[in-house]
Parts: sequence; structure tokens; C-alpha cells
Amino acid sequence: MTNKIRVTIWNEYFHEKENKKVAEVYPKGIHGAIADFLGEDGDMEIQTATLDQPEHGLTEEVLAGTDVLLWWGHKAHYDVKDEIVERVYQRVLEGMGLIVLHSAHHSKVFRKLMGTSCDLRWRESGEKERVWVVEQGHPIAEGLGDYFEIPQTEMYGERFEIPAPDCLVFISWFEGGEVFRSGCCYHRGKGKVFYFRPGHETFPIYYQPEVQQVIKNAVRWAKPIPTKSGSIPVYEPSKPLEPLS
Amino acid sequence: MTNKIRVTIWNEYFHEKENKKVAEVYPKGIHGAIADFLGEDGDMEIQTATLDQPEHGLTEEVLAGTDVLLWWGHKAHYDVKDEIVERVYQRVLEGMGLIVLHSAHHSKVFRKLMGTSCDLRWRESGEKERVWVVEQGHPIAEGLGDYFEIPQTEMYGERFEIPAPDCLVFISWFEGGEVFRSGCCYHRGKGKVFYFRPGHETFPIYYQPEVQQVIKNAVRWAKPIPTKSGSIPVYEPSKPLEPLS
Amino acid sequence: MTNKIRVTIWNEYFHEKENKKVAEVYPKGIHGAIADFLGEDGDMEIQTATLDQPEHGLTEEVLAGTDVLLWWGHKAHYDVKDEIVERVYQRVLEGMGLIVLHSAHHSKVFRKLMGTSCDLRWRESGEKERVWVVEQGHPIAEGLGDYFEIPQTEMYGERFEIPAPDCLVFISWFEGGEVFRSGCCYHRGKGKVFYFRPGHETFPIYYQPEVQQVIKNAVRWAKPIPTKSGSIPVYEPSKPLEPLS
Amino acid sequence: MTNKIRVTIWNEYFHEKENKKVAEVYPKGIHGAIADFLGEDGDMEIQTATLDQPEHGLTEEVLAGTDVLLWWGHKAHYDVKDEIVERVYQRVLEGMGLIVLHSAHHSKVFRKLMGTSCDLRWRESGEKERVWVVEQGHPIAEGLGDYFEIPQTEMYGERFEIPAPDCLVFISWFEGGEVFRSGCCYHRGKGKVFYFRPGHETFPIYYQPEVQQVIKNAVRWAKPIPTKSGSIPVYEPSKPLEPLS
Repeated sequence: MTNKIRVTIWNEYFHEKENKKVAEVYPKGIHGAIADFLGEDGDMEIQTATLDQPEHGLTEEVLAGTDVLLWWGHKAHYDVKDEIVERVYQRVLEGMGLIVLHSAHHSKVFRKLMGTSCDLRWRESGEKERVWVVEQGHPIAEGLGDYFEIPQTEMYGERFEIPAPDCLVFISWFEGGEVFRSGCCYHRGKGKVFYFRPGHETFPIYYQPEVQQVIKNAVRWAKPIPTKSGSIPVYEPSKPLEPLS
Repeated sequence: MTNKIRVTIWNEYFHEKENKKVAEVYPKGIHGAIADFLGEDGDMEIQTATLDQPEHGLTEEVLAGTDVLLWWGHKAHYDVKDEIVERVYQRVLEGMGLIVLHSAHHSKVFRKLMGTSCDLRWRESGEKERVWVVEQGHPIAEGLGDYFEIPQTEMYGERFEIPAPDCLVFISWFEGGEVFRSGCCYHRGKGKVFYFRPGHETFPIYYQPEVQQVIKNAVRWAKPIPTKSGSIPVYEPSKPLEPLS
Repeated sequence: MTNKIRVTIWNEYFHEKENKKVAEVYPKGIHGAIADFLGEDGDMEIQTATLDQPEHGLTEEVLAGTDVLLWWGHKAHYDVKDEIVERVYQRVLEGMGLIVLHSAHHSKVFRKLMGTSCDLRWRESGEKERVWVVEQGHPIAEGLGDYFEIPQTEMYGERFEIPAPDCLVFISWFEGGEVFRSGCCYHRGKGKVFYFRPGHETFPIYYQPEVQQVIKNAVRWAKPIPTKSGSIPVYEPSKPLEPLS
Repeated sequence: MTNKIRVTIWNEYFHEKENKKVAEVYPKGIHGAIADFLGEDGDMEIQTATLDQPEHGLTEEVLAGTDVLLWWGHKAHYDVKDEIVERVYQRVLEGMGLIVLHSAHHSKVFRKLMGTSCDLRWRESGEKERVWVVEQGHPIAEGLGDYFEIPQTEMYGERFEIPAPDCLVFISWFEGGEVFRSGCCYHRGKGKVFYFRPGHETFPIYYQPEVQQVIKNAVRWAKPIPTKSGSIPVYEPSKPLEPLS
């Protein structure tokens, strides 16, 4: 029995195989790069899963053994089978943490959990982004300064069609004139969801220390909270806890 | 051209036709009872729609001419066609208000907008409910006192598996020992959603003045806000608003 | 008896008398400029008040007759008497709306209502600001597009040390690299508070149509909600509403 | 150097010395009872402080060495010196956690941090309270079931005049017919504040396992987050991070 946080990193793993430039930036795949730095501190037990595996690598067993799932996808959101989306969704409601990275804003599971389109403005421009911390007492801001910069990035701009986050941790500034809610926390069922904007397949963003710090912080924040609460008895009436007149 | 709020009241309209007791309480149907009191003040233009109509009465045309939709359903949530659910959902994101009444917590469209199960505890017990106002400055609390009572009701209890509301207006106390978040406001896309717990097919709750007041308030709060904002250009990159270096 | 919203515009009214440049931009004072455009639509009854008047123009009588108070101050926050601050504060808790403009972020009454320092970064640079609408369904966003620009402004940057707003309506982008939560809604007691960043004594920002639109919208949103709720009986125990065992 | 959370428990310590019944329930004082159970798990380093000590036991040095401060007061809120309130308040904005217990809802520091009256209904009746968990994924709910009961308590009822919490974790049901937001989380500056309702001087509530669990959870949640963020340069303009045109 381990006290480590059991992390599964899911990657669409498409660009890295199709595009030489991406393969050079992320030779082990984006999931491999993330696995490397999440493993550094020794408090996480890490596995990866990809779209092309059976059941996209997210079998009942894998998910049952996952405390926090990270999700990276971009081109192939519609190739993710609905039954796997449903399975991940149910696990979040049961308590599993979910970290949604960059272009996974349009993943089926994030849209299902948000209840909105999650549409946004975008531009692949390699411009500068500055990520400002607006809730400095939040555990996901641990170790950061007032802001950090990403020298070259894809732009994502408002309006980001999401529900107002339970806690807004980061707001990004872009060289081209846009802003974006870049770090958004949500409770969904017994689970927690964190959307984190930075990260792209052609820029080496997941090698940047601040980005790595945020993702580590997010995993620790999103881990399930053990409770004795039962499941809600949907089809059976609840007995009164007090005498009725 | 009218300045009135264009309201459509949707009712599953099942119990009233199948159950004599319900028919006695709501001889015009629940939608008819709601239409009667919403029409009193002259600021709303009201139509109704029911499950058994073609397209459940919610054609593209009807929805295009609806500012605020009220939804009552209970037994037949799964008989509502997915394409109509999708149509209502899109209209909410575009700005239409949605008032979700009582057992419609389990309607497909509310669950889709919330991103959670919307499960809860329940008991058909005819017990007393006391609805406390916790945000007295909110327009949905207009005209109310510190609380109001419903002499006989079905109990709904926590945990209500919803996202934390953007604004929590009411909390209910139940004789049998439970509490419930009974008035919950949400922004979704450009639209607003209000969930209101009270209301049942066999108790004459929609004839109670405080309940009628809340529903009127909610319609006025939920009406669309005219803006000049465009649709988000999902498939096309945005041009930079500032020169890029 | 009037149905109009009774608005009082409070201005420190210092810069306009001391600084020729400011006097040229706002010959009637900032309060005069705001009074002019708020009066345009005929739904508001407007008076003004300034620091140098007896009781700063905010007598018990004036405040009792005010539905929404606008506050502009900058240099003389510490000259506002504590008893007047307390009086305004109590009126907000009782239901009066408060619109806090630009440098009034550091006014005594806003800090008291927020419970934080309300500190921020700043720079008088005449740079460009772009105000993005992030909650398009909110009444304070009525009539706006996706964003609006202020050609020359003072910069205010994060971290803005405020409590997370109940609703965040605007986020600003600044040419110099900062972002800012520029439109923040709060409930406090029975009253509503809106902080709006744009506006400065040397730039003609209060003549800009979008800025005027936002301030009009905010006044309408902040007006008191009539209720039958009583005052909370602090020194007397409440009688049980149900029999105790 | 320790990795333990440095906890200071502040108690007014008045009832225990004046009232024999209270002294029997809490022979070491309420602070002593809390110190006993917080010390059980070995992850906290605990000290206590009381009103009658010099500077109420909250010297600059004590506060500088405190990660999380617990506050219990009831009769003597107005005997707490304003300069000590200011000192505690500043430390919260700098990052210190604050756990506000029961009747400390009316303490000067909590009211200052909330910006509202924090008034509520109350009744010393010895009635039953049932505390429902409404956000089961929150770390303060760790180890709890769907609800827990307090057999005999003082009633606190809505409307509790507070700002809407950043996260609402508990709602209480009372035998006499009221409800109450019993577990409320707030960010203030870099610090976190948790208000927890249960607890009274004449009922042995702080010996109840669920109550002890909640307070332990809250201390762990409220501990400061180490960051590299600087203090906000209030009196000096910020240099632009980007070239201005």
C-alpha cells in the first residue's frame, strides 16, 4: 500500500508521431515529458495512457487506480469514445482529480463537466504570454512569484466560454492584446478539476520550471479527499431523521 | 414589437392526465397554473409547450421567440429527445434564460448545463419546509421576508450534487432533518439559469404567493442581456489586436 | 413619489480645483460629467456631493434618500471623516448600492467593505487599455461588444488585493504588460457594490460611450431590492419556530 | 527548523474562570481542550494565548511564528485592543491562516476581514444541530460522512450577514426550524480564513470527534502557501514590462 498520489497522464499522442518538429521538442511524447518532471519529487506514482491503446488506455482498472488524471488532447477529441468519456466523468464525480491541459479545453470530458462550449479565441503566433497570479494564497500558486512569462506561445483569448471558476488562480496577458483566465479550479461531484492554459505541442513549454511547478501543485491539490460519505440514494426515498408531525 | 418578456412554460404534462388527484390540484396543468400568475403583472407575454406536442412544442421558431423558458418535468425526463435538449441548451448559451423547477433537477438539459448528476435525497412525505433567504440583496429575493414556509411538501435534501452556485439565494429547512440549496443562480454562456426547488404535482405549491413571487422575480432576472458581442470564432484564428514583435 | 433611481455622485473634487489640466478636461468636475450622462435616459434622479461640503455632503438625510451612491476619490481618502465612512457603510449593508470608481479602490469605505488592503500596481503612463467582457450575460455588460478600448489611461495591475468578486465582469489588458480585474460585483449585507477601474482625472475617460454605458448599467444593477426582511435581532434570542424536544 | 504547522490558539478565557459550569466542561480552558486534540497527530506545534496576557499574548514575535491562528471569543470582543486586531489582520493578509470558532463570528478581526456585520439569529436552547456536508471534495470535509450531529447546542440561524463564502462546506439544520452556513472558506490577501460554527462554552462540543476532525482539517487547509511574490509597491509606480508606444 502506497501513500503516493497515483497519477495517470493521458495524451492523444498524435502530433508527436505525425510532425517531426513536435517529435523533436517532445521525443518521449508530451506525456513522457510530463511524467519525467512529475516523478522528480517522489510523492507520485506515475503511469501514462494514450488514445491508440485499447480503451484509450483508460480501462476500469486503470481509472480505479488513479487519484489524479491529466488530459492532453488537441486534434482527436472526437476520436475519444463516448463510453470512455463517460467513465472518466463518473470517476471525477466519485472523487478523482482531473487536470485539463491547454487544448484539452475542447475535450469531450471537460465540456461535459463544465456544461458549456469551452470555446475561446486563439492564434498560433509564437507570441509572448505573461501569467499573473491573482490568488496568491491558493496551493496551486505555491512557489511562484507575482507572475511568470512564457516567451513563445499560442494565444488563447477571452471570452472563454466556461462557468465562472470556483477559484480563479491565474490570468494571462498576451502580446497581441488579449487576456485569458488561465488557471481555473472547479469542484464537480466529489472530484476537483483544474484547467491550466499554458502548453503547446511545438513550444517547449512543459520544460519550463514554473509550468512544471504549477502542474505539480495542481496534482497535489486535486487528489481525492477520503470521506465516509455514501452514494446518494437516487431511486429510494430517504427515511426522516426527525419525527414528522 | 414588444418590450414584454417572452416566456415559454414547458411542462411534461403527464401526471395531470394520469392522476386524478393531480388533475384536481392543477386542472389546467402545472403550466396553466404558472401561466396564470405570470400573466398577472402585464410585463410578460406567455406561451406554453408540452412533451406530447411535435418537437415537444419547442420548435426552432418557438425557442427563437423565447426570452425565458421554464421547465417542469418529473416522470418522463428520458422521453425528451436529445435533439430538443441540444436545441434548448444552445439557446441558453446564446442568452435565453432557463428556470428549472423542482423535479426538473433531473432533466437532461439541467444536467447538461451543470456538468454533474444533480442527484439528491428525497421523500414524498408531505412535511413542512421553511425557505430561508440567504442573499437578501438579490433581485430574486424581492418582496420576500426573512423566510417563507411551505406547509406540505416533498423533501429534497443535501448533498445536492451540483456545482456551487454563482449565487445561492435560498436554503431550505425540512421537518425531517435535512437542508437543501433551494435557490441557485448560474451563468452559462450568455444565458442565466435559476434552479428553484419548491413545487410538486400533488401539493398546491404553485398557488402560494411567495412561490409565485420568486418565479416572477426569476423570470425578470433571467431575461437575456442585449449585447454587441459576436460569436466566438472557433475554427478561425483571431488577428492580433496589437503588433507582434 | 418617484420610480426613478435616486443617485448621489460623490466626488473628492480636489484635482479639478488645483490642476488646470484637470479643470479643462472636467470643467464641471468629474461629478458634473457623470451627472450629465446619467441624466440622459430619464430613469435617474441625480444629485452630487463633495468633500468640502458640511458632512462631505452626505448627511443622514441625503443618504436616506439615495438608492445608489457613486464614489470618486484619489488624493484625499484620509480626509474623509470616519463617521461619514461608517454612515455610508451602514447604508450599504441596509441595501444602498455603491459604485466605486477607479482610484476609489483605496477609499476608506471600499476597503472597509472588502476587508482587504485593495492595493494594486499602478503607473501614470497614458498607455492603452483594452477591457474584455468575461461574463456576457451580466446586466452590467449590456450593450457592449466583446471588448472596448481606452486609448490613454493610467495602468492598474494585479495583484489587486481584493476578495474574489461574487461576479467578475471585466478583465483589462494593458500595453505595458499587466492585467486587471476591472469590473467586480459584490453583495455586502443587503447592498450591492460594483468596482469599475476605468476613469482618471487627466484623461477624458468619462466621456467615452462604453464607459458611460457601464456606469449606467451598474447603477441599474445596484439599486436596492425591496424586501420585507427585518433587521437581525442581535441582542435578543430568537424564539424557536418549531417545538423543541 | 520544523516542518510542523505552527498553531496558536487564542481564547478570550473569560467564561471558564467566571462560570463553574463552564470550568467543569473545559477545566483547561477551551484553548486547552483544543490544544489537546490538535496535538494528537504530531504534525502541529501548538501554543496558546489569552486576552489577559500582555498584548493579549499576540506579540509581533508570536504572530511572526504562527502559521495558523485559532480564535475563540464571546463576551469580551470589545476588550480586544484595536492595535492587536490590526496586527492579526495584517498577518492574515500576509498569509497566516485564521480559524474563527463559533461566537467569534462577532470578533473584531473577523468583522474587519469580512467587511460586514456578521450578525445572525441565536438562541441558547440546547437543541439538536445536524451539520450537512455540501462540498464533499473539499479538504475540510476529509473523513466525514454525509452529515454529523451535535446533540445539544446553541442555535445560530440565517440570515448570517457575511459575504458569500468562496467555498461553502457545511450547512446546519436546527431542531427549532433554522438553517445556517456553518463552514465558510475565504481568501483574504495571501491568507485563508475558515469560519466554523459549532462550539460553545457550556456544551462539550470540542470533545466530539467530528468537530475535532473538522478543526484539524481546517488548520491543514489554512496553512500559509510559500511564494516568491513580493509586496505590492503601493507608493511607487510600476515600470512597464513591455515597451510603450
